[in-house]
Amino acid sequence: MTSTTSHRSSAAERASSGERRTADPTGPIPVPAAGAPRLDVPAVAEALLGDWAQARRASRERARDPRTHRPLDMTVAQHRDQVRAQMRRLADARVSLPMLPESLGGPNDNGANVAAFEELVLADPSLQIKAGVQWGLFTAAILQLGTEQHHRAWIPDAMSLALPGAFAMTEIGHGSDVQSLATTATYDIDAEEWVIHTPFRAAWKEFLGSAAIDARAATVFARLITQGVDHGVHCFFVPVRDEDGKLLPGVRSEDDGPKGGLNGIDNGRLAFDQVRVPRTNLLNRYGDVAPDGTYSSPIESPGRRFFTMLGTLVQGRVSLDGSSVRAAQLALHIAITYASQRRQFTAASPTEETVLLDYQSHLARLLPKLAATYAGAFAHEELLHAFDDVFSGRGDTPEAREDLETLAAALKPTSTRLALDTIQECREACGGAGFIAENRLVGLHQDLDVYATFEGDNTILLQLVAKRLLTDYRHELKSIDRAGIGRFIAQRADVLARRHTPWHRLVQTASDAGSAQRSSQTLRDAEFQEALLADRARIKVEEVALALRAAGRMSPADAAALVNKHQVEMLDAARAHADLVLWRAFSAGVARFEDPGTRAVLTDLRDLFGLTLVAEDLAWFLLDGMLSAQRGRQVSADIRRLLWRLRPHALDLVAAFDLAPEHVRAPIALGGEARRQEEAAAHLRAQRASTSAPISEKALRDARRGR
Amino acid sequence: MTSTTSHRSSAAERASSGERRTADPTGPIPVPAAGAPRLDVPAVAEALLGDWAQARRASRERARDPRTHRPLDMTVAQHRDQVRAQMRRLADARVSLPMLPESLGGPNDNGANVAAFEELVLADPSLQIKAGVQWGLFTAAILQLGTEQHHRAWIPDAMSLALPGAFAMTEIGHGSDVQSLATTATYDIDAEEWVIHTPFRAAWKEFLGSAAIDARAATVFARLITQGVDHGVHCFFVPVRDEDGKLLPGVRSEDDGPKGGLNGIDNGRLAFDQVRVPRTNLLNRYGDVAPDGTYSSPIESPGRRFFTMLGTLVQGRVSLDGSSVRAAQLALHIAITYASQRRQFTAASPTEETVLLDYQSHLARLLPKLAATYAGAFAHEELLHAFDDVFSGRGDTPEAREDLETLAAALKPTSTRLALDTIQECREACGGAGFIAENRLVGLHQDLDVYATFEGDNTILLQLVAKRLLTDYRHELKSIDRAGIGRFIAQRADVLARRHTPWHRLVQTASDAGSAQRSSQTLRDAEFQEALLADRARIKVEEVALALRAAGRMSPADAAALVNKHQVEMLDAARAHADLVLWRAFSAGVARFEDPGTRAVLTDLRDLFGLTLVAEDLAWFLLDGMLSAQRGRQVSADIRRLLWRLRPHALDLVAAFDLAPEHVRAPIALGGEARRQEEAAAHLRAQRASTSAPISEKALRDARRGR
Repeated sequence: MTSTTSHRSSAAERASSGERRTADPTGPIPVPAAGAPRLDVPAVAEALLGDWAQARRASRERARDPRTHRPLDMTVAQHRDQVRAQMRRLADARVSLPMLPESLGGPNDNGANVAAFEELVLADPSLQIKAGVQWGLFTAAILQLGTEQHHRAWIPDAMSLALPGAFAMTEIGHGSDVQSLATTATYDIDAEEWVIHTPFRAAWKEFLGSAAIDARAATVFARLITQGVDHGVHCFFVPVRDEDGKLLPGVRSEDDGPKGGLNGIDNGRLAFDQVRVPRTNLLNRYGDVAPDGTYSSPIESPGRRFFTMLGTLVQGRVSLDGSSVRAAQLALHIAITYASQRRQFTAASPTEETVLLDYQSHLARLLPKLAATYAGAFAHEELLHAFDDVFSGRGDTPEAREDLETLAAALKPTSTRLALDTIQECREACGGAGFIAENRLVGLHQDLDVYATFEGDNTILLQLVAKRLLTDYRHELKSIDRAGIGRFIAQRADVLARRHTPWHRLVQTASDAGSAQRSSQTLRDAEFQEALLADRARIKVEEVALALRAAGRMSPADAAALVNKHQVEMLDAARAHADLVLWRAFSAGVARFEDPGTRAVLTDLRDLFGLTLVAEDLAWFLLDGMLSAQRGRQVSADIRRLLWRLRPHALDLVAAFDLAPEHVRAPIALGGEARRQEEAAAHLRAQRASTSAPISEKALRDARRGR
Repeated sequence: MTSTTSHRSSAAERASSGERRTADPTGPIPVPAAGAPRLDVPAVAEALLGDWAQARRASRERARDPRTHRPLDMTVAQHRDQVRAQMRRLADARVSLPMLPESLGGPNDNGANVAAFEELVLADPSLQIKAGVQWGLFTAAILQLGTEQHHRAWIPDAMSLALPGAFAMTEIGHGSDVQSLATTATYDIDAEEWVIHTPFRAAWKEFLGSAAIDARAATVFARLITQGVDHGVHCFFVPVRDEDGKLLPGVRSEDDGPKGGLNGIDNGRLAFDQVRVPRTNLLNRYGDVAPDGTYSSPIESPGRRFFTMLGTLVQGRVSLDGSSVRAAQLALHIAITYASQRRQFTAASPTEETVLLDYQSHLARLLPKLAATYAGAFAHEELLHAFDDVFSGRGDTPEAREDLETLAAALKPTSTRLALDTIQECREACGGAGFIAENRLVGLHQDLDVYATFEGDNTILLQLVAKRLLTDYRHELKSIDRAGIGRFIAQRADVLARRHTPWHRLVQTASDAGSAQRSSQTLRDAEFQEALLADRARIKVEEVALALRAAGRMSPADAAALVNKHQVEMLDAARAHADLVLWRAFSAGVARFEDPGTRAVLTDLRDLFGLTLVAEDLAWFLLDGMLSAQRGRQVSADIRRLLWRLRPHALDLVAAFDLAPEHVRAPIALGGEARRQEEAAAHLRAQRASTSAPISEKALRDARRGR
């Protein structure tokens, strides 16, 4: 299929040359009826590649190389060797150069850098994460937390892989609560050295990529102690192995061994027994110690200083968001292609079996995930822009950083959850074939599994989002004037009234006027969807804020207990916020297309996304008086109608993911199933035409009975 | 921990000797307050082991042997070798003897046989399934579908593993639709032989355990063709390899290669090129061919004959149901033990971090799964009894068989789904530690994954359940007399009225009388819960039946389209039925305990199960007028209250699963975490007591400001 196509060809070129990647040429391709709206696949493909399309294309090109592909049956040791060799190639190709600022010879193109890394998930998620550890964490820590001397000393070797490194933040005892890390770095005035020390087993650095074998150095997060004062967690550059890979004196390491996935990475533990490094090994951008032991920092508040240092690491969350969307796209490409060719059971026709994707339940399990994946792709592009603006320095304000961190904290849990759920749904939708390793889905699930808990555990991140929303809400309350407060109270009274008024009597009833048709149209109205999702996001925050308003006057223990009693609601409010962000990004994405067919199809898909969100929380909308019973009953019927409307566009919608056969690799999605179906159908056709073919016992009995 | 305990000791003995398996002795064990109700752990453990406790204990004893344990880092070939060696040991120990009837020297104890196999999931799911293929499918097909000559000829060797076999039903092209299998067995009168043939690629037998390497013979499902008539799918005994493991002439085989899990099994494909076997190799209990080619069967209808043959294979679904419950128990044991010891973040206390299980969101993710797992265990015991009654011959009527098949079809999808979701939730709840292979959760997910789609795809099974419910509903309608029809119409009118009446005005409003307290009490009332779940199950079937009533007068194509338009609702009705079965089994299980403390705790857990089911479908209950808005708002608050009430019993509830350390194996659940926490706490205590410990910058700043 690709032999006639240049490796650099775009979706546009392939589409214009009549080549379709999603379907086997021998198989039937259900297409939209003539005259019906139709997706402009190349245009959508281009939009999904986004503003860093070139970087993505170059990286996808690399991901076609079989040497980069996740193995199906290797020991942990063999897989690590393979990934190590591929890292070498990435380093030689200087793929992370875009992350470097001009002062270090790079283009300072952070968006391109992250975009390129995200695409590596198509080759092997182990390679993506191993590269992420080396350049996105270890090198980035030196770059972001260090100063010029550190950049000069270590970044060239870190970039070239002459200096493989680990990022030693997490400890066995503290992953989510980084502020409580227990490793210490105590300043010795006489020697002008730091003494790095692991005081107990729970303080061992844990789950560190490259720590088991490869790392020669580590960026170690430890409590900075000087002149008897603990200044909290700072980052230190600590050599851990010599040129021969032997551990340096005082450094201990253990191998994490086999994991659920990502087995191409040598994760491991590190511990330090009074290990000494020079004073200047403190990465001192946000905190420094003079030779005499005096501590200084450009940020006075220890809390804000800590969060500023941590904030420089948002890149990991950004790239996991992007690669999760990509993994979900790959899974959907495989499952939807297969479901368009695979047939099972005859009911509609005595001679032709039904294609899986024509079953309502099959559409219902796959298309809402497809819609959510589109939402995720558009939202990720916005996140990547926010990231690039801040890290390029173009829009680097404290507010922009905080917004970026909140956005990343909202999207990373949503997209990693979506990826895992989508991959699992796709795997089950492919039946036994989905369980065979060469069809990719099981391996994707194994690797992506940990995306939900590393680089910020999903629950913890959603809690961060909730806290930010609550803070914003309190600021909003503080900043409004007397008239505003009056309006606010009136508004709240309205909400409370709705909650205690029979909800069928509300405004909607009048406008619905008993017409299911009208009710249905309104639910598919974009403004109405947005209002539902925006009101929900706001009210959920308000409800938590109201429930917690007494906490300020309580003892810390009582306040903590009160907050804990509302933790599930807090997480729920954060999810509602993320849903709104995704819905808006999807809508904004659709609005950028001018072709009416494309807009029509993508609007249906956006509606499916919006209505699925409403359906998943329907009881809340009913109980909060935001939907009448009549409209409530309409939601699932509307969703089912959208599934059928979108059915003819399913293959186009996955074609726009623009995945090459070398990215897909799953035999069930590369024509194998279509060929088998065609061969079987031909055999059965010949048999029906033959006079010597056996007649079925049932047909014989029916004939004898004169039926 | 176990060195002082005999391997045969029961939970009762361990409890009386003060030994607790779930918690490390050095760690704090949160226990219910003095005087509060408390679970009688040994009694519950005994009840969960059920009526075949002895068989389960013997099998668990075997599962302690390290040689049986799922490996963490092996190639597929190595894992297969290990499982093969363990199969040898199972055969030598004659573990499947209980499946044989008295005529073949067995005790005909089918319940004990299945119970024992289920427990093997604790050792290695590959071993469970490999054994299931050999004895539960291959041998059972000979036993159930064959007659005395076949039993004598092959069963002794199949039992002893002298004759390893494959069960060749599924084809690449037909898994769920067994009736459409394409392999043919054509009778050759002259030679008095069957000619087994694979007509095209899609007809290759696929995903067969033991087919890639081990199988010497296969029970092959093929269309029986004699005298020019196709009598549909029958089962044939076909040798496939010689003593040296070389494929016999005309037989082809391919290896399925690495899979998502269960890699200890050599799954593969088989194809037959005009392979000849004697006439008597037809397993002829339900259909036979005389030497002259005349077909005969004790069951006249080809359809009923086919489903009778298939029905003999229900055992696989029964055992997957049981082993899924066991796997979910193991995952919960690991995650809840860890969550009881793991601490993170200080909020309630400046010096002590909070135990994970004390966070509301952590309880909310684990305890509902724990409740559902209890429901699954009690329901499985009922299923196993139904199975044993039929297969022992004590209660083998067509109605009992049909009920058994429906029950298995309802429970297998529910428990396999529960297991996968529970394992995944547990894996994420353990953070990074949950991703490390030695902590078991990732391996369990990998292996259990395919339980959702093999031995009857979950979607297909739920569809079977829905069809059965619809048939029952139509029979019910037909069988009621005129007065009954009058009552029925009145009842339906009531339902319709509720659906179109503001639901807050209904009966409940009067009884609620505005009191949240009372509303809450009623929701926890068992009769009310049962009424909700039973009404839902009934109404959902009725609604589908009403929607489909026109199908009978339609063309097949139109009828199929109409049914397909309601497929999601059909599956939903089947799930509602399964939920009701589970809820009732749980309630019946609780009622069997006499100890008031045990009843109180398990009633709370049953309520959590019931209310979670209601919460998950709350919008439906609201829209159908079955719950008032007031009660609807109460559900989530009630659930949260139950989480806190059950919190002190969480460890007791997993202790009743009675898993030995050799079954658990996960270091994070065997005291490692508790020891680390204790060591860290001691270090920090010593530091606080010391005068030379560093003071924090924040404390210093606060002190300077005079705070």
